[in-house]
Amino acid sequence: MKTIVRLSVLVLLAGMLAMSAAKPTRVIFFGDSITQAGVNPGGYIDRLKKVLPADHFELIGAGIGGNKIYDLFLRMDEDVLAKQPDVVVIWVGVNDVWHKATSGTGTDPDKFIKFYNAVIKKLQAANIKVVLCTPAAIGEKTDMTNQQDGDLNQYSKFIRDIAQTQNLPLVDLRKAFLEYDLQNNAENKDRGVLTTDRVHLNDAGNQFVADQMQKVLTTAK
Amino acid sequence: MKTIVRLSVLVLLAGMLAMSAAKPTRVIFFGDSITQAGVNPGGYIDRLKKVLPADHFELIGAGIGGNKIYDLFLRMDEDVLAKQPDVVVIWVGVNDVWHKATSGTGTDPDKFIKFYNAVIKKLQAANIKVVLCTPAAIGEKTDMTNQQDGDLNQYSKFIRDIAQTQNLPLVDLRKAFLEYDLQNNAENKDRGVLTTDRVHLNDAGNQFVADQMQKVLTTAK
Amino acid sequence: MKTIVRLSVLVLLAGMLAMSAAKPTRVIFFGDSITQAGVNPGGYIDRLKKVLPADHFELIGAGIGGNKIYDLFLRMDEDVLAKQPDVVVIWVGVNDVWHKATSGTGTDPDKFIKFYNAVIKKLQAANIKVVLCTPAAIGEKTDMTNQQDGDLNQYSKFIRDIAQTQNLPLVDLRKAFLEYDLQNNAENKDRGVLTTDRVHLNDAGNQFVADQMQKVLTTAK
Amino acid sequence: MKTIVRLSVLVLLAGMLAMSAAKPTRVIFFGDSITQAGVNPGGYIDRLKKVLPADHFELIGAGIGGNKIYDLFLRMDEDVLAKQPDVVVIWVGVNDVWHKATSGTGTDPDKFIKFYNAVIKKLQAANIKVVLCTPAAIGEKTDMTNQQDGDLNQYSKFIRDIAQTQNLPLVDLRKAFLEYDLQNNAENKDRGVLTTDRVHLNDAGNQFVADQMQKVLTTAK
Repeated sequence: MKTIVRLSVLVLLAGMLAMSAAKPTRVIFFGDSITQAGVNPGGYIDRLKKVLPADHFELIGAGIGGNKIYDLFLRMDEDVLAKQPDVVVIWVGVNDVWHKATSGTGTDPDKFIKFYNAVIKKLQAANIKVVLCTPAAIGEKTDMTNQQDGDLNQYSKFIRDIAQTQNLPLVDLRKAFLEYDLQNNAENKDRGVLTTDRVHLNDAGNQFVADQMQKVLTTAK
Repeated sequence: MKTIVRLSVLVLLAGMLAMSAAKPTRVIFFGDSITQAGVNPGGYIDRLKKVLPADHFELIGAGIGGNKIYDLFLRMDEDVLAKQPDVVVIWVGVNDVWHKATSGTGTDPDKFIKFYNAVIKKLQAANIKVVLCTPAAIGEKTDMTNQQDGDLNQYSKFIRDIAQTQNLPLVDLRKAFLEYDLQNNAENKDRGVLTTDRVHLNDAGNQFVADQMQKVLTTAK
Repeated sequence: MKTIVRLSVLVLLAGMLAMSAAKPTRVIFFGDSITQAGVNPGGYIDRLKKVLPADHFELIGAGIGGNKIYDLFLRMDEDVLAKQPDVVVIWVGVNDVWHKATSGTGTDPDKFIKFYNAVIKKLQAANIKVVLCTPAAIGEKTDMTNQQDGDLNQYSKFIRDIAQTQNLPLVDLRKAFLEYDLQNNAENKDRGVLTTDRVHLNDAGNQFVADQMQKVLTTAK
Repeated sequence: MKTIVRLSVLVLLAGMLAMSAAKPTRVIFFGDSITQAGVNPGGYIDRLKKVLPADHFELIGAGIGGNKIYDLFLRMDEDVLAKQPDVVVIWVGVNDVWHKATSGTGTDPDKFIKFYNAVIKKLQAANIKVVLCTPAAIGEKTDMTNQQDGDLNQYSKFIRDIAQTQNLPLVDLRKAFLEYDLQNNAENKDRGVLTTDRVHLNDAGNQFVADQMQKVLTTAK
């Protein structure tokens, strides 16, 4: 846990949560198809709802399939700011990398960073607490031979650097998935441990992500 | 000319220009590297400045190399809206297509349309007149054998459809370049007629674009 | 027809066919998934078998899904030369272009030409008559807005140039498909006229290809 | 060294070299632009010539810029077999991966393996000893954040698997470069340690490769 969430930030987050004790903390999960599926029965947001008391946390999914960082920027007014959340969990990056290989429509590194910072800035300007996540996986092989491991590592590093520079809480799913797979994927399979298809979460994956997210949200209380 | 600019729209544009007779009409050219180079001596904006009277037109370049439609959306507050222009000429699209082939970071068709409309909407909300342009060329061969001709035609069609649906003035550079090359590129060369490198304008290209732009801006008076 | 098959070459082909009157002319269709499906009931090779007399023509399919020109070169000893055909119809090119957009594994233009010539040379060295085909379609829209129209036109032109230079019979399916679609695809659909999915043949497509192939093979008699 | 060259194979290689004591062992380095530059003054083949006695080793460069595995297959008759070498060092793979990102013309994994095995088989059929090399680098960052690290690891693994299965000597340049950079690239630069531009060798790189190659060739004596 210590390695995943920055304690100095948790103090801030805890303060925010304490102040809003009267009404539940509204958390929006802002992301792509993984988050879109997260609100389905058994999805990671659905699982979080079952463990986080409803009088303390209101959890809202705002994931849309195929979204990249700039898509989040485009729709954040309507889908996020209008709902006046207390906390926004940004989980994006898989498509920014993946689509380079599948349709030639990924996101350039410098553009990714620029839009990522723009999303954060706009949330912070609305006094919203921001939690960052690294993109978990495009393939679960543990020997760094998934086709886009290098690029996904690079984009994860961008996010870690932003979290560090701005002192923001980080759910380092990329790191957590790799560690989990190193323990549980002895056959070096590219899917089937935490994902169904190298990217999207199976039951174990949804539970694992819920656990990681829960740590950040509750430690803060 | 009739085929390039929609007359019904010119009436609106003319009205706008008439009303602003006291001070020059401020026009921002909003685009990519082609427009960035357009303000250089001999560039298309520089050439326009020499033929359009300064007491009637204030011409401002706002082009940045590598920009795609979503980059325009990201920086439009600072680079365009803050300058309170009367007219914005949007000329973008080459990189959205080109980068698919060179770095796997082009723009998906549906995203292109979505951001394009978002840029227009935001300009119109600020009472700014919008002029659209189609992306001119990635290769000047006239027999539709430039690698990305199909895709560039597709994205040009998106822009034409938007212009038609919203009744906006259109500088159809894609169409104009092809017609010019059919007349002047008998050898079917991929560059050297209007471009230096298949994309960026040579002297003839800058003059040609200046001429096309001038028609839209002055017919409107 | 005159535009599709080079008459001067047909004389050669006719001569070859005449000489082999005693036993049926063995024709191998050498290609990709389209040809692999061509031997299925209703496929274009299956249809050709029904119209070309078996005592005159022995038709053999040698198509493998995903094949590009270099894959043909790799397997031609075993799959073609070992079977001692009289005629080989080479129909390839779609994947060389298509895979650029779907997996970043298309074929460079210069490599395409080099391998294409190498395949022809090796067939001719074995006294096999060679018939060339252009790749038909990746999308059936008729206004040159299918994403890869430019590239597919380019590779088709390479094949036409080789046919012309070497005086080889050509089934110009690219040209024929476009002409057919211009007549029969008023709605500008990207599939459903001659293809099921923009690339692979539906019933009408298989019949149309069979007709085009038949012309070349029988005119030669 | 033990990890790089398989000893069981060295016995075979040593035997081959012993038998050819009367005339120098003819070694062809078969590869891409890195090998093409290797024969230049200061290149790795040029450096090898200075340390390996000319009466024992005749070293020939057969590298061509932009070559992928299938290009080697296409030209191997003329450029390799016709020269009747005793040993062929195959060093290829960078372009098969790199071109996916730069022009959409990389090589599919299954095709890479198929052609790689076909090249080996043809060399062995001519009684030529084969030495394999893994592709060294597309970027020298040591934290697996070079864009194509995952894919390059994957293709290197393919080559290691072939070497192991067929008991062939392997110069594992991918592994050696990473180890060298971990020692000598504390700043995590993407170039400038062993390469000039992330891929092509600088002086240190040419010396390093020459050293690795020398070990395989001389241990065998």
